[in-house]
Amino acid sequence: MYIPTYDDMLAAHTRIKPYIRQTPVRTSDYLNDLTGAQLFFKCENFQEPGAFKVRGASNAVFGLTEAQAKKGVATHSSGNHASCLSYAAMLRGIPCNVVMPRTAPQAKKDTVRRYGGVITECEPSTSSREETFAKVQAATGGDFVHPYNDPRVIAGQGTCAREFIEQTDGLDMVVAPIGGGGMISGTCLTLSTLAPETRVIAAEPEAADDAYRSFKAGHIIADDSPKSIADGLLVPLKDLTWHFVSNHVSEIYTASEQEIIDAMKLAWKHLRVVMEPSSAVPLACVLKNPEAFKANRVGLIITGGNVDLDKLPWMKG
Amino acid sequence: MYIPTYDDMLAAHTRIKPYIRQTPVRTSDYLNDLTGAQLFFKCENFQEPGAFKVRGASNAVFGLTEAQAKKGVATHSSGNHASCLSYAAMLRGIPCNVVMPRTAPQAKKDTVRRYGGVITECEPSTSSREETFAKVQAATGGDFVHPYNDPRVIAGQGTCAREFIEQTDGLDMVVAPIGGGGMISGTCLTLSTLAPETRVIAAEPEAADDAYRSFKAGHIIADDSPKSIADGLLVPLKDLTWHFVSNHVSEIYTASEQEIIDAMKLAWKHLRVVMEPSSAVPLACVLKNPEAFKANRVGLIITGGNVDLDKLPWMKG
Repeated sequence: MYIPTYDDMLAAHTRIKPYIRQTPVRTSDYLNDLTGAQLFFKCENFQEPGAFKVRGASNAVFGLTEAQAKKGVATHSSGNHASCLSYAAMLRGIPCNVVMPRTAPQAKKDTVRRYGGVITECEPSTSSREETFAKVQAATGGDFVHPYNDPRVIAGQGTCAREFIEQTDGLDMVVAPIGGGGMISGTCLTLSTLAPETRVIAAEPEAADDAYRSFKAGHIIADDSPKSIADGLLVPLKDLTWHFVSNHVSEIYTASEQEIIDAMKLAWKHLRVVMEPSSAVPLACVLKNPEAFKANRVGLIITGGNVDLDKLPWMKG
Repeated sequence: MYIPTYDDMLAAHTRIKPYIRQTPVRTSDYLNDLTGAQLFFKCENFQEPGAFKVRGASNAVFGLTEAQAKKGVATHSSGNHASCLSYAAMLRGIPCNVVMPRTAPQAKKDTVRRYGGVITECEPSTSSREETFAKVQAATGGDFVHPYNDPRVIAGQGTCAREFIEQTDGLDMVVAPIGGGGMISGTCLTLSTLAPETRVIAAEPEAADDAYRSFKAGHIIADDSPKSIADGLLVPLKDLTWHFVSNHVSEIYTASEQEIIDAMKLAWKHLRVVMEPSSAVPLACVLKNPEAFKANRVGLIITGGNVDLDKLPWMKG
C-alpha cells in the first residue's frame, strides 16, 4: 500500500491546474449568526463537472503514460467520480468505462454520457458493483481509477484543502462529508503538513454511518447497500482512506436524513448555491453540534452540485 | 433632474465597499458550447441580501447626513430593493419603511423583516403602490430612496459593471434584465466611460415588455400591473433611467415566460447557482437569439437569488 505524500499533492496540483477551477469561497452573515461560528464554504460544486472529484480524476488521467492512456480508464462510482473521470478522460481524449448503480440519479448518468463515458449498470450494492466492474475491466483493459482508495486520487483531492487554506488565511477546522473517505483523506494529507493545527472533521449520514462506527471501533466496518438521501456517501472506507481517517481525523459527526434535507434547503436559501444532499451533511452536523464549532473559523467543503432539479427532497410527490 | 456621472459611480464604490461583496464570476463550458458564445455570469445573487440592489441602497444610506439619517429611509419596491435597503439601513442602524405589493414572494417579505424593515402592503399596481407610499412617507419623514429612479441608486448599481470589466479583462457585451432600469442605467453609466466599446443589452419578459416598446417608440410607455414570473421586472421606466436606456442601450430582447423558466432551470443545473426568474431573462434572450451573441464575450448579470424554494416554477402543483 503506497501512502501518498504532501509532495504528491503538490505535484498533483501542478498537473491538474489547467483542468480544474480554483473554486470560490462563499460566506453568509446569516449562517454565521445562526451558528455562532465563522463559516467558509468551498464551492467545489462549481467545478465544470459539478464536483471536487475532478481533482483526483484529473490527477490520475493526466499522470498516465501514453501507452497506458491508449487503453483508457475504468471505474465504479456512485456518481460524481464517474462523471469527473469521464470529463478528465474526455479532456485527454481517451476512453472511460464506468460501472454505476442503476439507482444513481438520472442527472449523474446524463453527465457521464455527456462526457463520453460508457456506463455499465449494476445493482446498488458493493458486491454487485465489484463483480460487474471486474467483467468490464477485463474486457477493456482500462486503468482502474478507484473512486477513493487510490493514492493518485487522494493526492488530487488534497489540492482542495490547499486552496481553501490560502483563500481563507487559515481555519480552525475543516468539515467534509465522508463516504469512502477520499476527500477527507486528501484533506488530512494536506493539512497535516500545511496546517497541522487545523482539525479535520468528517460528517456522515446516520443512515450510512459505517465510517462513524469504524472510527469508534478502531477498525473498518463496511455495510452492504446502506440507504441515504446523501447518495454520494454510501460506500465503505478502504485501507488507504482508513489510514488517514484513523490517524488524522479529530471527530466524526452524523446527521439524520431530515437534518440533511433541512441543511440543504437552508444552504440553497442563504448561500444561493445548488448543492447535492451529500454536501449538506457538514452544515447539518454544525447546526446539530453548535458547541463544538462556536467561535471557530470553520471551513465546509461543498463537494458537489449534481441534483435532479425535478425531485428536490423538500418537495412533496 | 440630476444625471449621475462616472465620478459619482467611483465615489459610490469607495463608499459602499465595506458593505458589499465583490461577487465572483461564474463560467460554464457547457453553456458556452450550447450558445457558441463565451459567457460570464456575475453572481450578484451572492450579495448578503441576495441581490445587486444592495449596491445602490448602500450608496444612498451611507451617503445620508447624520441629521437625515435619524429619520431613516423609505421606499416602495417589488422586493429586492426593499430587502437591500432594509439591510443597508440595519448596517447603519437607522429605520427603514417599505411599501410592498401583497403579492410579493413570501421569501422577499421575510428577508425585509429579518433586516428590521417595516412593511406596509399595497395592491400589485403602480398606482396603489405610489398612493400607499405617499401616506407612509408623510407619517415617517424617511428619506425616499426610489428603487431605481434616483441618481444615488444608479451610481451604486454602476459599481457592478466596474468590477465585471476588471474581473473579465473586458467584454463585448453586457446583458442585464430590465424592469425599472436601475441596473441597466448603472451599467450604461459605467461602461460609456470605462469600456465604451462594450455594448449594453437589456433583457425583458415579453409579458412585461414596456421597456422594449418604449425603446422602439422613442418615449416611455408605462403599463399598470403587468404580470410575469420575473417579479422583479414589473415596474416602468422613469425619466432618469429612460435617459440612460434611450442614449446608451444597444438593443432590448424579450423572452416568453416558458423561455425564462427553461433558462432558469438550465442555469441552476449547469452554473449551480440559485437565481430568481428575473435573473434568467438575459440567458433566455441569449439562447433565443444565438446569432446576436455568437463568438462574443458576453457578460450576464445574475441580479438576484431570492426565490421561494417551495414553489419552483418548473415543479407541478
